[in-house]
Amino acid sequence: MWNNAKDRMLRERATEVIPGGMYGHQSVALMPEDTPQFFIKAEGTRITDVDGNVYIDFMCAYGPNLLGYNHPDVMRAVSDQQSRIDASTGPSPLIVDLAEAMVSMISHADWAMFCKNGSDATMMALMIARAYRGKRKVLVARKAYHGSMPWSTPRPAGVVDEDRAHVIYFDYGDPQSLKDAVVSADGDLAGIFATPYRHDVFADQSMPDREYAQVARDLADEHDALLIVDDVRAGFRVTRDCTWESIGVRPDLSAWGKVLGNGQPISALMGNNRARDAASQIYATGSYWFAAVPMAAALETLRIIRETKYLEDMHRIGKAFRDGLNAQAKDIGIGVRCTGPETLPMLQFEDDPDFRVCYGFCRAAMKRGVYLSPYHNMFTNAAMTETDIAQTLEATGAAFEEIKSNRASLQPSTKVMAMTGS
Amino acid sequence: MWNNAKDRMLRERATEVIPGGMYGHQSVALMPEDTPQFFIKAEGTRITDVDGNVYIDFMCAYGPNLLGYNHPDVMRAVSDQQSRIDASTGPSPLIVDLAEAMVSMISHADWAMFCKNGSDATMMALMIARAYRGKRKVLVARKAYHGSMPWSTPRPAGVVDEDRAHVIYFDYGDPQSLKDAVVSADGDLAGIFATPYRHDVFADQSMPDREYAQVARDLADEHDALLIVDDVRAGFRVTRDCTWESIGVRPDLSAWGKVLGNGQPISALMGNNRARDAASQIYATGSYWFAAVPMAAALETLRIIRETKYLEDMHRIGKAFRDGLNAQAKDIGIGVRCTGPETLPMLQFEDDPDFRVCYGFCRAAMKRGVYLSPYHNMFTNAAMTETDIAQTLEATGAAFEEIKSNRASLQPSTKVMAMTGS
Repeated sequence: MWNNAKDRMLRERATEVIPGGMYGHQSVALMPEDTPQFFIKAEGTRITDVDGNVYIDFMCAYGPNLLGYNHPDVMRAVSDQQSRIDASTGPSPLIVDLAEAMVSMISHADWAMFCKNGSDATMMALMIARAYRGKRKVLVARKAYHGSMPWSTPRPAGVVDEDRAHVIYFDYGDPQSLKDAVVSADGDLAGIFATPYRHDVFADQSMPDREYAQVARDLADEHDALLIVDDVRAGFRVTRDCTWESIGVRPDLSAWGKVLGNGQPISALMGNNRARDAASQIYATGSYWFAAVPMAAALETLRIIRETKYLEDMHRIGKAFRDGLNAQAKDIGIGVRCTGPETLPMLQFEDDPDFRVCYGFCRAAMKRGVYLSPYHNMFTNAAMTETDIAQTLEATGAAFEEIKSNRASLQPSTKVMAMTGS
Repeated sequence: MWNNAKDRMLRERATEVIPGGMYGHQSVALMPEDTPQFFIKAEGTRITDVDGNVYIDFMCAYGPNLLGYNHPDVMRAVSDQQSRIDASTGPSPLIVDLAEAMVSMISHADWAMFCKNGSDATMMALMIARAYRGKRKVLVARKAYHGSMPWSTPRPAGVVDEDRAHVIYFDYGDPQSLKDAVVSADGDLAGIFATPYRHDVFADQSMPDREYAQVARDLADEHDALLIVDDVRAGFRVTRDCTWESIGVRPDLSAWGKVLGNGQPISALMGNNRARDAASQIYATGSYWFAAVPMAAALETLRIIRETKYLEDMHRIGKAFRDGLNAQAKDIGIGVRCTGPETLPMLQFEDDPDFRVCYGFCRAAMKRGVYLSPYHNMFTNAAMTETDIAQTLEATGAAFEEIKSNRASLQPSTKVMAMTGS
C-alpha cells in the first residue's frame, strides 16, 4: 500500500537546512500533492522513493537516463576509469577521444568543449556568439528554457535588467517574428538561440518546422551571426545527430547535456570552424569539467548510441505509450493531447485551463506506481519494454477511471495557478 | 628518462577537435614549456602523464584533491552509493544529511544549497544578494577570481559591459577602498564579495586581515547588504569552518567547492537565516546538482575532516615544504617569496618581473618529477608525507642549481608577458 510517511518526515528536516525545503527543477513544489521528494534507488526503468514505493519513471532524471539507470556497460566504463584517473591536475586523453567521437557524430560540428551543466554549454554559446564579431544581441524564443543563469532563468528573483539588456524575444516557429527581432537588433546581432522544437512547460509541444529553421539559418548568415541549437533536452532522443539535422538545417553551435554520460555529469558545446576562433578566446572553466570518469561514461554511451537500435526501440515504446494513452482517453470519453516526439512525450487534457485534471490524473497514476509529470515534457528510455508499457497502461487506465469519477471534486493547485496565470 | 612524445602527439590531435587545443584553467598554455597536458593516472599524491612520467602533484587537481587521489574511504562511499542511486528524478535523503552536516560545521550557516561548479555557488550568491532587498550593486576585489561567468571571468572575450554594470571594484584588504566603493554604490548595495584571503594569479598571497574583514561586515550590516566569503579555493585548507571564522568575522553567505567531495563533482552555497528567504526565491538548478554519489563522497570527506588530524598534518607538511624551499634558496643565494597559508603555497622569485626565473625553476622541477605552478597558488593534500617532501626537495634542490647556472639564458614566455603586462 502506497504511503509517504518517511518522505514527509524528511521534508520537515529539509525545511530546516535547505531554503524552501528544496530548490531547482527537482523540487516537487509544482508537482501533484504527495509526489515523493526523495528517492533511494534507481535501476533500469524504476525509481524507488524513500518509503519503498517503486515507480516506472517517465522523467528519467529529467533527461539523463537514456539507456536505463545503472546501465551495466556504462557503469563498467565508469568503474574501470575510476581506478585510473578522474578529476586531476589535467585532463586525460579521453577528452580528445570524446571530442573526436562527438565531432564524428554531430554533422555540423568541427570541435567540442566539455562542461558540467547544460547552463554551462548555453552560457558558453552566448559568450562565443558575442566574441565572434564583437556584437551583442541574442535572439531567444519567448518562454524557451536555456538554463538557469540570470540571462535565461524563468524566475525574476535576483535578476537585474542588464542581465537581459541584449536579449531580444521572438515567437518560436514564427519566421516573421524572427525577422522582426533581427530588425530590432539593428546591426548588432550576435546570435540566434533556436530550441530544436518547442518544449515549454505547461504547453503543448510542437515539432520543428523546416521553413522556420531555414529562415533562422539564412538570417544568421545574412547578418554574420551564429545560429545556436540548444539540444540539451532533446539531444539523441530524436536522432543520432543534432536534432535539426533531421530537418536539414545546420547550426553553428549546439549545446548538449543530460544523456551524454547516461547520468554521469557532463555537458558539451559543439561548434563549427566558423565559431572556432571565438571559442578559443573565451575563458570558461570549472573545477570538474575535465574529469575523466564522465568522459569514459560518455564514450560508452556514444558507442551504444551508434551501435544499437536504442533509438528505434525508444520510438516504438514511446509510440505504444502514446497510442495506449490516447485509446484509454477515447474509451473513457476524456479529451487528451499527446504532443512532441514519442521519446519526449507531453500530456495535456482538453478543457483543463488550470491543469487540475492533468494534476489529478498524474497523482492517481503516481499512487499506482507510474511517475509522470503534468507540466513538463516527459522522457522515455531505451530500457523500457512492452511489458513496462503494459504495466504503465494498467495504472493509467485506473487513473483515467479515477478522475472520471472524481473530476467534480478536483481542485487546482494555487502554485500552478500563480505560475501559469490561470 | 623524462619525455613527452605522446603528449605532443595528443596535443596535435586535440588541436583539431578542441578550440585552441585545450581551454580553461587546466590548459597548460600559461605553464612552462613542455608541461604535460594529459594524464592517465592519479593515486594518492602522484599523477602520471600520458608518457608515463610520474609527478608529486602540488596542484591537487587545482584544489579538489584534499585527502589523496582515490582515497579508499571516499571511494568506498562512492561505490556503495553507485549501486543504489546517483542522478535520478529526485534527490536522495543524502541531500538532507549533507546539508545538516555542513550546517553543523560552518558556524555562520543555517542552510545549504548544492550545485556543481564553484561558479554556480558564486552566481547563486550574486543572485541571492540581489534578491535580498532588490538592490543591485556588488563589490568585488580587483583581480579576485570568483569563477568564469561573464560577471567575473578574467578575460574580456564574450563579455558585454552590462554583465558588470553593477559590479564595483575595490582593493582587497584596504578598508578605505571598501568604504569608497560602498559610497559609490549610492544606496543600491546588494552584497560584498570578500575573498577569504588574497590569492590572485601572478601575485604574492596575503593572509586575511581582521580589521578589513570587520569593516566589510560592518558596512554590509549598515547598508542591509549581504557579506559573501568565496571559500571555493581555500575551504577546509585553512580551518574546519569558513576561513574567516579563524579571524572571528562571519559572512551571510559562503561559497564552497573543490575539496567538498575530494574530487567528486559538488559545490555548495552556505547561508544564514537572514539570507534564507532570498535564497528560496531564486531559480538556479542543473541536471546533475542532486546526484547522490558526490553527496555520499562529501559526507565521507566531511567525516574525515571532522575526525582526523588531516589539517594539522597538512600544515606540518606544508611548513616542511616551505621551510625546505626557503633554506635551499638561501643556501644558493636566490631570493624567493613563499606566501599564503602553508596548505596553499605560492612561490615567487625576487628580481623576476617577467617570471622567467620562476618558470625556469618550475620547469626544471617538473622534469625531475615535481609538478609546481609558477603563476597560480599551489595546493597540498593530506596524503603527503615527510618522505614526499624529502623527495620533492631533492628535485627542487637540483632545480635551484639548474636555474642558478642557466639564469642568463632563461627567456620570458610571451604568453605570460601578455597576461601580466610585464
